Parts: sequence; structure tokens; C-alpha cells
Amino acid sequence: MKIIVMKFGGTSVADVKKIRKVAETVSKESKKYKILVVLSAMSGETNKLQSFIDEVQYTHSKESDLVITSGEQVTIGLLSMILNKNGIKSIPLLGWQIPIITDEHHGKGRILNIDNANIENYFKSNDVIVLAGFQGVDVNGSITSLGRGGSDITAVAIAAAVKAERCDIFTDVEGVFTTDPNIEKNAKKIDKLTYEEMLEMSSTGAKVLQTRSVELAMKNNLSLQVLSSLISKEGSYIVNEEHIVEKEIVSGVSYSKSESKITISGILDKPGISAKIFGLMASNNINVDMIVQNISQDGITANMTFTVQNNDLNKAKEIIEDKFADLNYTNLSTNSDIAKISVVGMGMMSQSGVAEKMFTVLAENMINILAISTSEIKISVLIEKKYADQAIKSLHAVYKLGKK
Amino acid sequence: MKIIVMKFGGTSVADVKKIRKVAETVSKESKKYKILVVLSAMSGETNKLQSFIDEVQYTHSKESDLVITSGEQVTIGLLSMILNKNGIKSIPLLGWQIPIITDEHHGKGRILNIDNANIENYFKSNDVIVLAGFQGVDVNGSITSLGRGGSDITAVAIAAAVKAERCDIFTDVEGVFTTDPNIEKNAKKIDKLTYEEMLEMSSTGAKVLQTRSVELAMKNNLSLQVLSSLISKEGSYIVNEEHIVEKEIVSGVSYSKSESKITISGILDKPGISAKIFGLMASNNINVDMIVQNISQDGITANMTFTVQNNDLNKAKEIIEDKFADLNYTNLSTNSDIAKISVVGMGMMSQSGVAEKMFTVLAENMINILAISTSEIKISVLIEKKYADQAIKSLHAVYKLGKK
Repeated sequence: MKIIVMKFGGTSVADVKKIRKVAETVSKESKKYKILVVLSAMSGETNKLQSFIDEVQYTHSKESDLVITSGEQVTIGLLSMILNKNGIKSIPLLGWQIPIITDEHHGKGRILNIDNANIENYFKSNDVIVLAGFQGVDVNGSITSLGRGGSDITAVAIAAAVKAERCDIFTDVEGVFTTDPNIEKNAKKIDKLTYEEMLEMSSTGAKVLQTRSVELAMKNNLSLQVLSSLISKEGSYIVNEEHIVEKEIVSGVSYSKSESKITISGILDKPGISAKIFGLMASNNINVDMIVQNISQDGITANMTFTVQNNDLNKAKEIIEDKFADLNYTNLSTNSDIAKISVVGMGMMSQSGVAEKMFTVLAENMINILAISTSEIKISVLIEKKYADQAIKSLHAVYKLGKK
Repeated sequence: MKIIVMKFGGTSVADVKKIRKVAETVSKESKKYKILVVLSAMSGETNKLQSFIDEVQYTHSKESDLVITSGEQVTIGLLSMILNKNGIKSIPLLGWQIPIITDEHHGKGRILNIDNANIENYFKSNDVIVLAGFQGVDVNGSITSLGRGGSDITAVAIAAAVKAERCDIFTDVEGVFTTDPNIEKNAKKIDKLTYEEMLEMSSTGAKVLQTRSVELAMKNNLSLQVLSSLISKEGSYIVNEEHIVEKEIVSGVSYSKSESKITISGILDKPGISAKIFGLMASNNINVDMIVQNISQDGITANMTFTVQNNDLNKAKEIIEDKFADLNYTNLSTNSDIAKISVVGMGMMSQSGVAEKMFTVLAENMINILAISTSEIKISVLIEKKYADQAIKSLHAVYKLGKK
């Protein structure tokens, strides 16, 4: 029994007409495979439910998870109705009906176990199982939600559990692009990329997949396809490195305009000072991205620069100011007028000169680099926000990523 | 451990502000009792979900029940959040979490069993259980809905299961009135009435409670209170006859303007003809209300008059016309311009003259009676719709039901 998983997001199931279109797409594949469909709530629905929760201010509770997971119940019921009406045997299932067991962290549950035997049983009398994304149940029988990107997580986890041939993530774009087509019209859909590349692109700003679901796919060696729910056309495959014969030196240029830079100057450079600063950030649930540390001109003190999400900036600043005496620094400055531009590619590991080319192009465009951070397959730079689009276009051109 | 059940309908939980008001009402009682709250979905929500189902046209299915029961999940989560925030220990529970076991009739499930032990267990660590109305789960683990008035049914059934002191049904009116206050300003709230009276008033047009839930309360000898969720004031108690010392001869005047009259003339009066006609109606799910049969002037054939709900009229007409040859009648006529006016009261059983007074008043008002039907505690008449309000006011006055 060959199984594939097909996941559709909120915009693909926004109304009954769109759900009919999803049913068509599922019907075609149902001739070849048993299908596990994973759905999100109708677009806008989860935001509406979140606004109720915000009004009461009692988040990440058993209760808020009950509220926030109600939207998927509607879309899975409707899709299954349409499939059955069209003669395709189908059953809609909620997280607790499989069950998808999670831990007890409401608002950000992690999947612990999925009952595979039960799914096989449902497939005995059904061709399609329509599963509510984003939700599970803990050992006490309380419904849990999986947090941001939760429906992708459900899709990948269930695909791994049933050893699916592949997991198709349907979205409103045609796949993963070499860069944002809204900025660079010449951007090209990438046919195949590795988990590592996708992870770097996601974490440097590409919004098409959450890193959690890519990590989970990589761990289970599960092929993902990101494709459009609107047009019938192959998308981008995210696969194990060994499936890609010729690695691109640079696969894509990603960016983020939603980060702010914090610089703490004149810190006495003692062991443990970094641990102290970033421990404070972590214990306050603030994600820190780029970190750069330099010895300052006096040769005694150090300057520390790092970035946080814009909506965490004020909180981060307050925390550092509160600990002024303890951290013992001379100056604190912040800047939100920045952009992070990254080039990502597996080929970087074996090819030199990628960074040099990047810095040269930026210099030719008179764009000043505020900070640099690198991994084996990624180089990120911070620049002034007003130069972001210019930098993206120039880099996209110099690495020859465009259509021709 | 004394328990009361408090049920709030859709208008009482229409938004977070109104749910806060519900929390206040519940909080007051929680000083004296353990409380089981039963909620409907936000008003408008169930209609929206039903419109999706209608669009797909796959009603009364496992799938449509999944869709239609999702709204209660939101309101119970929100109320429980607010209660917990206010320091009242509360847990929200869905039908399957109790569980409330129903049969497998999707769209109109009947409750078979409620696990009492589980509820007692939840009360060990909670002061308030907030339960989703209108839903249950069948033995296969599929969610079922209970049909119209389903949340009232849930409230009464759970109250019976836990042997609650009483079951309060909160609505947007102050209780059961002697007649519709929109028609007769002098209408008075009834302090106490019997199950039988409430049943007759519900089935003759009073919309405050569905007959199914009153029947269930009567069967379990459970006291109901119908009261307003907006103002803090005692409502109407619906109780066993023995709790009412002095029975009113007439307790109320109810009416329905949504029925149509069907008259089949010149039927050969053979045994079994009624069974045939009403068997046809029943097998097509058409509820028949008043039935009057007369021998016609020729002394050989009979005329049969009965009423159906307006929205069933065309279907009923078609069925009778289809069976023209079989039923062997001379004429079929229908009339939707009618109203059914009923007077209801326990005292009628022991007091004579109620019917005479009714017919006299209608005659004095020059209102012609088209059909009559009676029970031990009720007299209903069909009249022309244009006289309905006049008849209601006159009857309300003659039985001295008003405020002074």
C-alpha cells in the first residue's frame, strides 16, 4: 500500500469553492495512492480565534488550545463530504481520533507518538483520510496545538509515521524560488534542493516552510515537495543530498527585513559575559540570530552586536538596561533600519570564492556591511534596509540564479 | 456535593464581552454549588457552519456533524479561560471527553449514556465544568450532533445524570409568559408551570423550550428554570404537578403562524385510509399536527383536514397528488393564511367551561373557527391568520392572565 501525504494551507481551503478544487487535486492522486490529506483552518479563521484568546489574555492553556484548534474541524469535515459525494471513500479525523499524542506544552506541543496501526485500519475501508493539522492530544486527553507552522509539522510527522512515498506541501506559491519574485522578477523556481539548504533559507527569511518541519523531514529522510494548489505543475523537491547529483554553488538569496540590531559597547571582556547576555535573552524567550563580537579599539573592552526580531527589540533593550550594573558596559545602541541578506548553497562547502564575490558585489554597489555571519553553506550580511532590494538583485545576478 | 446545571444559548455567548457576563453569573452560584455549565456556539456561528454544509449538500453525515459541532469548542474554551483567570477552577470538556455516548444517527443523535463517575472525578479538582452542548460521540468514536435544541437536551440529560438540584436554562427572555409579550403588552411571566403545560405550550408555538428537553426533564423529575441571562431575576420554574398547589385553569395562550392547512375532500371512508395518508407523511419526514375528520354532506365520503409546517406544504401536496388514484378523493385544497391559537392549563382537567368561554369570545369577535383539536389540558383552534393577534388579546383578557 503506497501512501502519500498532501497538505493544504488556509488559503487553499478558504471557502467551499476552494475546497472543491482541493478535492479535485486529491481525486487525481487517489487513483495511484492511498492518501493522507492534512488541512489547516480556513484562512483568517485561526487569526479570528486568536483575537478572542488575546482579548481574554490566557494563552498557551488547555483552554486556548481548545479554542484555537476548532477551525480545522470545519475544513476536514467539508473536504471529506465533497470526496464522499464524488464517490471517493473518505473519513475526516481529528488529532485525538488517530491519536496524535503530544507532550503537555499547550500552544507549542511536540508530537511524541502517532498510532500507525490505527491509520492502516482506517485505510482498509477508505481511500482518503482527511486529518486535522496543527492539533494533537496529550496523555490526559486534553487537546493540544502544535504552534506556528503546526499543520506542516502534522503532515511531515504523519508521513514519517506511515513511511509515505512523499509529502506534498501545497501553498499559494509554485515552490521555493532563488529569491523573492516580488523583488527580483527574474527569480526562478528551484527544482531540487537539500534539507540543509531549505533550513538555511527558512531561517534566513524564506517563508515557504517552517524550519521545524524541514528538520523533522530531514531526520526521517522524507522527501518533501512544495507546490502550488492553484496550478497543476511540479513544485520544488526538498530531498537528501545524495539525490542531487550536481550541487549548485549558490542556490538562493534570502532576506529578512524584520530584525533589529543591538550593540553593547565597552564590555569588560571576561569569560562568561556572552553566556550571561544570551542566557538573559533565552530565559525571556527572545530568539537571538546573528552574533558578532569584536575587541574594541582600546584593546581591553569588547563590543557585542546581535540581532533579534523587531517585536522583541524593546523587551531585549529593557532587560539589558536593567542589568547595567551587572553587565558593566559603556554604551547600548539599537538599529531597526537594517536588513539581513543571505546566500545559501551546498556547493559552498567545496568551492571557494563565494564570500569574496558577495563582498565585491556589495562594495561595487557602495553598500556597507554592518555585520557578517557564516555557516558551512550560508553567508549572511547585515546592511542598511534601504539597500536591501538592490543587494538582492545584484547578488541574484552575479551568482547567475535567474531564468536565463 | 450539590450540583446545578446552567445552560446558556448562543445570544448569551455571542462575544467575549457577553461571555464575561456569563462568567459573572456562574461565579455567584459557584459559592453555593458545584456547577456544570452547558454552552451553545456563538449566535450566528452554527448558521454559518450550516450554510457550508448546505453548499456541499451532504447533511446528517459523520462529516457534517464534525463541521456543525465545532462552534461550541470555542465558547467553552473562552468561558473556562475567563473563570480560571478569575480564580474559579474550571475545565472545558467536549462531548467525547465526558463521554456523552449517543446512537449513530448523525444530525439527530439520541443520548444513550453519560459517564457520571468521570464527572465526579473532574469535580474533585474543579469547581466548574464547562461542557459543549449539542454534541456527543457514538460507539465508533465519531462525533454526533443532537439536532435542534440540542444544547438544552445536553443540559437536561447531564442534570439528570448527576442528579442536579435544578437545571437553569438561560435565554434572552425572562421566562415563560402567559402569551407573547410582543403581541400582548400585558402578558405576565409565569412563576411556576407543570411539565405537561410546558409541553403543550412548546408544541403549540411557544418557542422558549424544545419539547424534547421538557420530556426528558419530566421523565427524570428534574426541575427546570427558564430565566434571562441579561437581568438577575428569578425566571419560570417548570416542575412536577405536585409542586404546584393551586393550578391555574388556563396558564397561557400560545400560537403558531407557521402552519398550513390541507383538506382532502370526498375520500371514500374505508378503514385504513387515515393510516395510509399519515403513513405517507411520516415516511417522508413530514410532521402532521392537527387532524380533523368529518363525514361529508353526502354521508358516504369523508373530508380530512390536517396541518403541516409551511415549509413542508409543497412536498405534502405533491405526495398526495401522486397518490391520487390510490387515495381516491375528489378535491385537494390548501391554505397557508391560517393561525393556530391554543389555550393551555392544568386546571382544565377539573374545571368545565373553558372551551365554551373560548368559543364565545371568538364568536363575539366575529372570528370563524376552521378546526378544533383538544387534549386534557389544551384547546387549539385554527382561524384566519389576520385575526390571530385579536384572538390572542381577547383570550388573554377573558382568562384574566394579565398583570392586574
